[in-house]
Parts: sequence; C-alpha cells; structure tokens
Amino acid sequence: MTQDKFLCDIGFIGLGVMGKNLVLNLADNGYNIAAFDLSDEKVQALIAQDEIENTTGTPRVYGCSSYTELLSQLKAPHLIVLSVPAGDPVDQICENLIGAGIQPDDIIIDTGNSLWLDTVAREKKYKSNFLLFSSAVSGGEVGARFGPSLMPSGSPYAWARVKPIWEAIAAKVDKKTGKPIERTQPGQVITDGEPCTTYIGPAGAGHYVKMVHNGIEYADMQIICEAYHVLKSALRLTCDEIADIFSQWNKGPLDSYLLEISVEVLRHKTKDTNTPLVELILDKAGQKGTGLWTAMSSLELGCPAPTIAQAVYARSISSFKELRTQASALLTGPQQTALPAAEQQEIIEQLHDAMYCAKICAYAQGFQLMKLAGKEHGWTLDFASIAKIWRAGCIIRAAFLQSITNAYQQNEHLDNLMLDDFFIKQLNERQLNWRKAICFATMQGVPIGALSSSLAYYDSMRCETLPANLLQAQRDFFGAHTFERIDKTPGKKYHVQWSTKDRETVVVDS
Amino acid sequence: MTQDKFLCDIGFIGLGVMGKNLVLNLADNGYNIAAFDLSDEKVQALIAQDEIENTTGTPRVYGCSSYTELLSQLKAPHLIVLSVPAGDPVDQICENLIGAGIQPDDIIIDTGNSLWLDTVAREKKYKSNFLLFSSAVSGGEVGARFGPSLMPSGSPYAWARVKPIWEAIAAKVDKKTGKPIERTQPGQVITDGEPCTTYIGPAGAGHYVKMVHNGIEYADMQIICEAYHVLKSALRLTCDEIADIFSQWNKGPLDSYLLEISVEVLRHKTKDTNTPLVELILDKAGQKGTGLWTAMSSLELGCPAPTIAQAVYARSISSFKELRTQASALLTGPQQTALPAAEQQEIIEQLHDAMYCAKICAYAQGFQLMKLAGKEHGWTLDFASIAKIWRAGCIIRAAFLQSITNAYQQNEHLDNLMLDDFFIKQLNERQLNWRKAICFATMQGVPIGALSSSLAYYDSMRCETLPANLLQAQRDFFGAHTFERIDKTPGKKYHVQWSTKDRETVVVDS
Repeated sequence: MTQDKFLCDIGFIGLGVMGKNLVLNLADNGYNIAAFDLSDEKVQALIAQDEIENTTGTPRVYGCSSYTELLSQLKAPHLIVLSVPAGDPVDQICENLIGAGIQPDDIIIDTGNSLWLDTVAREKKYKSNFLLFSSAVSGGEVGARFGPSLMPSGSPYAWARVKPIWEAIAAKVDKKTGKPIERTQPGQVITDGEPCTTYIGPAGAGHYVKMVHNGIEYADMQIICEAYHVLKSALRLTCDEIADIFSQWNKGPLDSYLLEISVEVLRHKTKDTNTPLVELILDKAGQKGTGLWTAMSSLELGCPAPTIAQAVYARSISSFKELRTQASALLTGPQQTALPAAEQQEIIEQLHDAMYCAKICAYAQGFQLMKLAGKEHGWTLDFASIAKIWRAGCIIRAAFLQSITNAYQQNEHLDNLMLDDFFIKQLNERQLNWRKAICFATMQGVPIGALSSSLAYYDSMRCETLPANLLQAQRDFFGAHTFERIDKTPGKKYHVQWSTKDRETVVVDS
Repeated sequence: MTQDKFLCDIGFIGLGVMGKNLVLNLADNGYNIAAFDLSDEKVQALIAQDEIENTTGTPRVYGCSSYTELLSQLKAPHLIVLSVPAGDPVDQICENLIGAGIQPDDIIIDTGNSLWLDTVAREKKYKSNFLLFSSAVSGGEVGARFGPSLMPSGSPYAWARVKPIWEAIAAKVDKKTGKPIERTQPGQVITDGEPCTTYIGPAGAGHYVKMVHNGIEYADMQIICEAYHVLKSALRLTCDEIADIFSQWNKGPLDSYLLEISVEVLRHKTKDTNTPLVELILDKAGQKGTGLWTAMSSLELGCPAPTIAQAVYARSISSFKELRTQASALLTGPQQTALPAAEQQEIIEQLHDAMYCAKICAYAQGFQLMKLAGKEHGWTLDFASIAKIWRAGCIIRAAFLQSITNAYQQNEHLDNLMLDDFFIKQLNERQLNWRKAICFATMQGVPIGALSSSLAYYDSMRCETLPANLLQAQRDFFGAHTFERIDKTPGKKYHVQWSTKDRETVVVDS
C-alpha cells in the first residue's frame, strides 16, 4: 500500500494484544487499517503478523509513526479506533489527535475498559473537537481476533457509520439455535448469523453495561472457584477428576466458556514437572477495577448485588497471602473426613445445583442493576438484546444467556430474573440441593462466600417479611429515624418517644 | 443574658434533635451558647427547654436570629459548632458566615455526618477564610444530650482549643472497669472518668473513622436482626421470648447498647392493640449513606469487608417490598418444622456463638479498613484509642470494645483483630457452633447473609491456599493477565500461550 495510491478506511491506535487482534479481525473483514502505537516494535509486529496471515495479495495494514501520519492516511471524515488502557492514556491520545488536526465530524471510538463516568465526561469535553464514540469489547484476545461481543454507545450519528464495521467483526450466533458460530482461522469470515453487537444507548451506557458484564464475570469465576475448592479440599479430588466433573457439567445448563476454559486449565500439565500447572500458580488474584466499580455502583444505587461484591472481596482476601498464612496456623476449622463414594456423588450433584442457582442470582443482580442504572441515567436499555449479544464472543458467553434472552423477550419489563417462569422452575427444583451443598461446605470449613451470599439473596427476596422491622425500630430508638406501620396509612411516619417514661408513639410530619 | 453584658463562649448553628441536645450538654458543662437556626421555632424551642432545665440562675443560651448576630455575641476568636445535614447545607452556612465576617483564626466545627472527602476538600477551600475543624458525633439524641463519643480531626491548633470542651461533653468510662459512667439527668456533670474523645488525625480522618463506625453499626444491627429472624421464623418464638433470650445474652460477651435497645423494642407493646409494636413496623429499612460509603471505600482500597457490605445490601433488599411480596408467592423454600425443646436450646446457644463470631469478623473488617485507609492517606491512627472512645457514648458501645482496646494495647501493629490471642481463642472455641447455626438457618430457609458472609471471611482468612490459583489461570487464559508460580522466583510473571497448540509457558517482563 503506498501513500499516494489510496487512503485507509480506519485508523487504529494501541497495538497491544487486544488492539493487534482487533486490527487483524477488521482486516479479515475487508477493511484497510492505518495503525499506530507509541512503540514502533508493536507496529512492526502487527505488520509482520499481517504478512503471515494476509492471503488477499494486497496489503491490508499501513504502519504509521505519528498521529499526523495516521490522519493523513485516512479517508475523511476520519474514523479512529483506540485500544489503550483506561484513564489518562485515552485523554492523552485525544489531545494528541486534536494537535494533529482531527476535525469535528471525525469519530474516535474508545474500545478500552473506561469507567463509564469518564466516558460521559469525555464526550462533553471533546464535543467541539471530534465525536467521541465508545464501544466496550469483551472476549479477551481470542474474541478480539475472531469475533468479540461489542457494546457500543454514544451519538446515533456515529453509530450509523460504525454499525456495518462492528457487525462485521463481532462474534456471530446461529439465528436458529442461538449458539456461537465457530470462527478460528485467519482469513475466515462469517457473513450469516446474528452479530453480537447492538447499540446500547447514549455516551457511557455501553461502558456501564460492559462494567456490569465484568461484575457478573467476577461472580461466575468465583462460583467456579468455590466449586473447585470444595471438590479439591473436601472431596480430595485430583485436578483431572475435577476436570472430568466440570466437563460433564459443561454439557448441561452450566455450559459456558468459563467452565470450558477451567477444564482446559485443570488438565494442563507443566512441561518441567508434568504436574497440573494450576497447583503451582500463586493464589493471589489480580483485578483491574470493573468488578469493584460494579459493586460500588450497586451500593450507590441501592441495588442488592451481594454475589458480585462477594466475588470482588474474595479476590481482595486472596491478595492478603501473608496474613492468611499467619492466620491459617492460628484459626481452626472443623475436622475434614473422607466420604464414601455414594455420598460423594450426591455432594457433586448438590454442588452442581448450587452453582446453577448462584449463577442465576448473580445474573439477576447484574440485570437488576442495569435496570436501576438505566432509570437513574435516562437510558432505555433493551435487556433481551443485551443478553443476546452476550451469547457469543464475550467472556461470560454461555447457553444460559439464551434463557435470559427468552425471559426478557417474554417480558421486557421483568423486574428481576428470578421472577421469570423458567428461572422460577430452576430455582424451585434446585434450592434444596443448593442448601445441602452450602451446609456441606460450611461443615467442612471451605469458604463459599459467593454460593452462600447468593442463597441469602434468594431467601431474602422470597421473604415477604424481613427483620428490617426490628432494624427500623432500632434506628428510631437511637436516632429518631421514624418508621411506618403496616396497620396504618402507608407513608405515614411514626416515632416512639423512647427516652420518656410513657414511650408515647407520635406521628411525625415528613 | 443581655448583649452588652458579656459574650458567649460558643456559637451553635443547627438546632435539630442532635443540635439542641449538644447545646444543652455544653450548657450543663458551663459553656454559654449563642444559638441560631434558620427556623426561629427551633431557636425558641431550645430556649424554652433550657429554661426548664437550667438551675444555675443565670441564662446559658442566647437565641440569635442571624449569622451576623451570632458572630456579634461571641468571644473572639470565634468558635462555632455546626449540627446540620451533610452536604450542601454545610457549604451554605460556611458561605453565610464568611458573608457575616468570620475571621481566619475563627474555628468552625462540623459535627454532621459529612463524607470525609468533602471535609478534606472543604478544609482546603476555606483555608484563607477560617479554620474548618470537624468532629463526628455518635450516640444519637441521648448521646448528644448526656455524652456522645466524639471523633475530632483537623488542625492540631484548633484541637488545642476544642479539646477541653470536647472532653467535658463526651461520654465517660470508668478508668478502672472501662464501663460507661451513667449520666441521665439535666444538670448532671461527670468530672472524673476517661472521656470518649481523642484527636483522630488531619482533616477527614475523624469523619472517616466515624464512617467506619457506622459501617460496623450496620453489621452489628444486621447480625441482631438475623438472630431475631431465626428465633422468630424457625424457632417460632414470641417477641417476649426473644427479648428474654437477648436479655440473657446481654449479660455475656454480646453485652451491647444495640442488643439492649433491641430488648426494649421487643418488649414494647402498642397502646391501641397491646401487641408488640415491632410486629407492626414496616420491614423496609432506611439508610443515610455512611454504611454504603464504608463498603465502597473497602472495595476501592481492596480491603475485604463482606459483612458490612452484606448489611448494606440487606437494607437495600428490604426496600424492595413489592418485589419480595411478588417473589414470596413464586419462589419456594424448605418446609419448616417445629423442634423439640432440647434441640431448640442447642440452636439458641449456637446462634449466640454465631452472632459473637460474626461480630468479631465485622469489627476485624472495620479496623483493617481503617488501617489501610490510614496507610493510603498518611494518617497515623491509634486503634487502641479509637476502640477506647467507642466504649461509651456511641451506638456500637459494648463490653466487646474493651477486648478490642486490649488487643491493640498489646500490639498496636496488629494487622487483623482475628490474629489477637483473645479473639483467636473466642473464634476457635465457637466456630463449630457458628457453622451449626448457619446450617440450621440454611435448611430452614432463613436468610443470614451477615452470619454466613462472616464465616466465608473467616474460612478464607484461615485458608493458606485459596482457589485464586484457578482464577488467575482463567484470567491468563482469556486475557493474558499472567500469573506467578509458587515454585519459582516470587514476582516473576508467567503466561501460557493457551491459544497455541503447544501451550508453551513464557516469562513475561513486567
């Protein structure tokens, strides 16, 4: 490709693992890319990779060495995709592109894991300079390469331009079965199938939805880890035995990408010691923020999301390795004893149901959170479509997402997933096993915060009368916070004069 | 009191329940107060109350009708106490006082439940106008009147002036026993005893510590509510029977103000129906923010605080009353059956131990959070002193706080309360009962999120190897997030090339 012959369709900045793969995905789908990264090495690595993969005969990627060169290689109005770490880097690049002469009708698409509030602020900030569009990307490096789930938001004008490109590179599901269509080879393109992308809403909405996706992902991963922990510590199974069980489960309603890769991980042996690699991995979990942002948002909006918060805390606890090592020598648990095989099988089945029920709770929390956030911020979110675009490409992709799609297609106003007929049936059939699994782990001393906080969520939600009556009385006692009475007019506030001898109840004007 | 005769010691703005009582408390301790509120009715109510209570023969409170009048009635440099809702009202009053001529060496003490970050920002903002000092107050209306727990922070220069006043009005504990010294009558003054106030640190530190106090308070209340729920729903006890049990528990290690007032509440009958009032109170819990701020801060700082978060979520869930009513008809739980008396007694004992252990966990989380926040913000917090000033006056006052004081007096660097010898012993002796109580409630379908998330915290903390190894492998699989190996040099990062056929492990430069 020479500079004076023709101009590229898309500019791309940030050629890390995700960026490089998104470029190759775009190229496979017929787009020419002008690519730039502060590290020239990364630009060269992309070009080298493209040379290996490109079978079209004409170059697809043009490497640039400056922002100015990048702009000069693009068709106008310019369309530039960013794949850089959230936060300052995004602003720096925006400033640099302004310096290089970006125009008001040019579009910059931020595909990083930006905090949604930053996206909202940025869109305003750069309004007169260019159109900031954002699109969260889920699917990790493989997703980026062969079809991610894309959650775009921002100006509908920009979306009109981005849509065909996004629909081309997104993961696809079979229109009939709702199952992912496999795409694994460079050069391969899927033209039929339903693309896993849909316009989410105004600025920030896409990143918010992606943030909740990640919060759910934290919960999903923690639920799997807790099952692994019970199987390993209490049932004393080997990694291969656990992989067999997970593999079996992956054929049923728990069928999911995360369970599938867990099987792969558990079976993987190190070359040097020929032992399961997972047993040599340090048990300190990292996190990059989206999970805790989800939990923080749920607290702020007053939306219960205990399973997600528990998953975030589980990662925090894991990071205090020294403290745990110290505590493990001082704090005691119950004696663990070996179980007869028949009982083992029962526990395994109970654990399966516990995972499934906890998973329903985690998704119920995530979807309710999006609903409340949509209300708060004036976004009209289409939950059936959101569930749909999570059926393939993204990290939480699973057969399960089809059930959620169905639920919201039947009732778009559903307040909580647990009230959908299908999920009611699942929960009612499995709640007893869920309880038994929790009791088993509890008596064996295995921590199962995600499984048990989900049950507390379930049992609270199905509780017509919670003990918050006592709590309100306590608050009225020490802080005169008042309470309502179920035998009086709703909304009327009462206060007992607790510190007086007569303890009269008075009506309080609000 | 006439204007030309003499000037008052302290100005006071905001004469709601808390403000009025703080003024009377100050007056009892010999300070003359110039008092102002936007509502003249409240000013008059205060003066009327002071006339009833004042036995000194000379007026103690001077009612003002403007900010200017307030300043003109005060000795210079002026000392003004605010007791107004957190947020905008504080800023508005600061601006009005600047307008009225407040001077740079004047001191304004904010005693509201301000967000600590707002306090930090305000101190900077008003630096050239006056000295903003802050002091969180705990103890509700009765505490404010007869001795609260006070958590002051800000400039040490201001503290030097505030200290004698704060030590006078604060709750007192017996120097030998560590128990609260009762003060219940107007005019009564306690001159001996250890005052429940100590300088916490620079701007914001006091409000932060108070925020964590409230987070712990949420957990404490939720733990009591869960026990009440189990006793009521699963053991089918009456309010009076539950009050008897709580009253019994209040003589042991659970001895606390919150349990004491729960007994009072449970015994209270309505005058009209002569039935327990608590059963007529609507089970929708209110919240004002400090609990959720604590949980949010714990998430941000990576400090596990699941019991506190669970308590916040329990309030949120309670507020979805309609949803719960709907769900209660659709989602099933286990059959509850009546228990023989002997078994009941066992359950009650197990529940006692579960409450005590969960309580230890909640405080361990709160204190660890303060430790991490102190590190983050450069505050040198003295945890033995903080525990000390919570022994009386505040809402979470309890015999228990003496045990925490002891723990930090023995080891000021204690990383987590659960590693203190006394608490190790308590936990080890009671963990089995804790588990049994959880299993009982789980199989009875009673939600016990605070009790069970505490156990997950305990079991995670005493776990030398958590399943975060699998989680790190998952993260490496889908996102190339790398992991460390326990059999290799610490800090070295590894990545498996999962998407290749050979799945080689490579070392990644960080």
